[in-house]
Amino acid sequence: MSEKQSVGIVGAGLVGCLAALAFQAKGFDVTLFEMRPDPRASSEAKRSLRSINLAVSDRGIRALKYVNEEMASRVLEHVIPMKGRMIHDLSGTKQESQLYGLFGESINSIDRLFLNKCLLNELKNVTVKFNCKLVSVGNVHTTGAKAFLEFSTLEEGIAKHEFDFVVGADGAHSHFRYQMQKHMRMDYSQKYVDMQYMELYIPPVEGADAQSKERFAIDANHLHIWPRKDYMLIALANGDGSFTSTFFSPWKVIESIGSELEFLEFFQSSFPDAYKLIGEEGLRYAFSHQPRGSLMQVAVNPYTSPNNRAIIIGDAAHSMVPFYGQGMNCGFEDVRVLMELIDSNEGSAERAFEQYTGARKGDLDAICKLAWDNYYEMSTKVIDPLYLVRKKVDYFLGKYANGILFPWIPMYTMISFRGDIRYSDAVRLEKRQTKVLNWMQYVTVGTFAAVAIAKAMQVWQRR
Amino acid sequence: MSEKQSVGIVGAGLVGCLAALAFQAKGFDVTLFEMRPDPRASSEAKRSLRSINLAVSDRGIRALKYVNEEMASRVLEHVIPMKGRMIHDLSGTKQESQLYGLFGESINSIDRLFLNKCLLNELKNVTVKFNCKLVSVGNVHTTGAKAFLEFSTLEEGIAKHEFDFVVGADGAHSHFRYQMQKHMRMDYSQKYVDMQYMELYIPPVEGADAQSKERFAIDANHLHIWPRKDYMLIALANGDGSFTSTFFSPWKVIESIGSELEFLEFFQSSFPDAYKLIGEEGLRYAFSHQPRGSLMQVAVNPYTSPNNRAIIIGDAAHSMVPFYGQGMNCGFEDVRVLMELIDSNEGSAERAFEQYTGARKGDLDAICKLAWDNYYEMSTKVIDPLYLVRKKVDYFLGKYANGILFPWIPMYTMISFRGDIRYSDAVRLEKRQTKVLNWMQYVTVGTFAAVAIAKAMQVWQRR
Repeated sequence: MSEKQSVGIVGAGLVGCLAALAFQAKGFDVTLFEMRPDPRASSEAKRSLRSINLAVSDRGIRALKYVNEEMASRVLEHVIPMKGRMIHDLSGTKQESQLYGLFGESINSIDRLFLNKCLLNELKNVTVKFNCKLVSVGNVHTTGAKAFLEFSTLEEGIAKHEFDFVVGADGAHSHFRYQMQKHMRMDYSQKYVDMQYMELYIPPVEGADAQSKERFAIDANHLHIWPRKDYMLIALANGDGSFTSTFFSPWKVIESIGSELEFLEFFQSSFPDAYKLIGEEGLRYAFSHQPRGSLMQVAVNPYTSPNNRAIIIGDAAHSMVPFYGQGMNCGFEDVRVLMELIDSNEGSAERAFEQYTGARKGDLDAICKLAWDNYYEMSTKVIDPLYLVRKKVDYFLGKYANGILFPWIPMYTMISFRGDIRYSDAVRLEKRQTKVLNWMQYVTVGTFAAVAIAKAMQVWQRR
Repeated sequence: MSEKQSVGIVGAGLVGCLAALAFQAKGFDVTLFEMRPDPRASSEAKRSLRSINLAVSDRGIRALKYVNEEMASRVLEHVIPMKGRMIHDLSGTKQESQLYGLFGESINSIDRLFLNKCLLNELKNVTVKFNCKLVSVGNVHTTGAKAFLEFSTLEEGIAKHEFDFVVGADGAHSHFRYQMQKHMRMDYSQKYVDMQYMELYIPPVEGADAQSKERFAIDANHLHIWPRKDYMLIALANGDGSFTSTFFSPWKVIESIGSELEFLEFFQSSFPDAYKLIGEEGLRYAFSHQPRGSLMQVAVNPYTSPNNRAIIIGDAAHSMVPFYGQGMNCGFEDVRVLMELIDSNEGSAERAFEQYTGARKGDLDAICKLAWDNYYEMSTKVIDPLYLVRKKVDYFLGKYANGILFPWIPMYTMISFRGDIRYSDAVRLEKRQTKVLNWMQYVTVGTFAAVAIAKAMQVWQRR
């Protein structure tokens, strides 16, 4: 390239920031636009109310490292590793650890806002424009002409910017996507899940040293789950000793609770230990003031415009429910996959955009489905004895039998710790493993039954 | 009601106009808003380029009559009845009539623009505001407060209007729907069908009397079809002796045709008689200047807002492909169903809105699927000999066996001539009828086979 090609990115959230860093590293001239003000300038130290805590795992880390190894280690310096789930029973007295990995691997708790600020700080040579409200996306259908973005700002009114390529990373309710749909045939679906979420806060232990482990009221290195089938509570640790906890339930459950008092009663009987951790005041406040979030799944086809100048990535392209902890990891992977396509096309973003939907669609559909299926696993299956036995066998085989006849890798490991395995391949591999586990279960049950019958006959003959 | 309740309707197309008439007849104070200028004032006599000709059938007529019998007869005065399909073969020399009804029933060809003007003329006591671009829809979530619509106009800038109820009838790309989605959890999907359409024009016969039957180059009282499996051509008569013809094909078919000359060659070999009817000049013009339309299916859930003050109807709620000729008929039926719910709730539009989604969703999903399935019937099955035999038996049973053991009504009759049968009930009834037809087919084939074997054995024994 004689002259630098230009890229305009809409949305300076996590995925937008990483995309900006990635395009810049490939030699593009990048401008990043964000509707909101700079979060770093904001005096408001309060945590974003609508963020479910994030768990960075292998796919996210891999993408960060692909863009810049040093940046990745700076950004990930303050994560809190979570090596497993901690299951809290209904009595409020028993906790059971279920490890995530075969060899002690962890997913990593991080504050969304903190991570966003870290990524923004890395954008040294990228022009970042805050307070820019996207008005339109143009020239995404016609070949030849450059694409353009129009923004409305308080200072300039409507301003138009031309780019060789434009990227929409403006989240589940993406306006970039809506604008693209005006100019092209884009299949689109949004589906609300009948579930609300409400954030709760577990404070640090009073009087504990800010550096000591004692500041955490419960184990920091686990993702805590209170599985109650229809609804559940989770909690992830923050660096200051607090936990961000989230209560998930069908809408009718929360809507049937009419007062703070009823909410306290419900919470005490459903999550007695969490009731003490959060405290009556915190629960009262949450019930009356905390917004109730809705969960939406978004699917799109294709992700790129007919002239291969526009693309949507991250939640704008595939908003998923949070139950596999893959939303951000998958969005970061979008960036890596796109960059690798640029590599394999000798730097041509146009050809990369052209190939992107074909390369990515199957994997994105797979993880969106897995994310939804995992609600059932988190809320119900984790306390089913048969599931636990099967999981032990699955992990045993993953540890000692992987590669003997064929690969054997537990599903959670493939999704969270093996970013080299595509989501769609993970689904395929898992199907085979499930068949084998089923077969082992039947043989085991059959053997036990046969032995029992034989014993019974012996007893009967001896009489 | 002591004071009149107010209704604001967005979109003065066919369904919006009928909704305005219907609410007015029920005693509401109605205001109708339209983005475009008044089509009656426009000097441009040219027919809308993107309209597929319309076929009014029983459901549409029933809804018009429900609102006002006299209005219905005025509006329907100039339709051209079509009593069947006329199938044009590949040689260009043979035409075969396939009747639609059991007893000579017809569907009715009408110009969309003409019908729209007729309906607008009926709106005597309704305030109609043209050139109003919808900006926002508000108060559809919170109970209590009235809903409002904001419009941008050249004269007034942004103006806000409050209503007890607001109705979105602004078509497949509804902005009303988009605005509703901002305030509520609405499942939504849009899916493009891999098919384009292009309008063509068959002129009246030159020199023929404007009132005589001779002005039509082909029979006016049929819907003409040139079924060619992958693609097809249709034509519907207009009052002036011309026909509006539409060419449907997958995008790749039209995109593989590179020049006017290639298009002429393609047309001559695929539709030799239509080639002559349209003429070389018309085909050249269409190929180079006529826009190519895309076909989109839209599904939504629910149709009404949480506070039961907003509703979407017509294409805004259920855009379907045009192959069953039910888009407008179904939109009109939306209005009738909504009005009947207001009746059964003693005039309460609020309770009617509340019940509407539950009452209507199954039927709308059913017709959207039927419309898509009917492409295969129109383009392929109409020339399949087995299909034709089965259809003859189906129609014979419909004519002579209906009600003997159970109802027997051919599917096309249920959809197009029996608006008293719900779309979803039609699907259920047809499933049973198909089973019986299959069974008769097997018995018949089996009997013939048995007779043939018996004969063969006789012959063999006699040797």
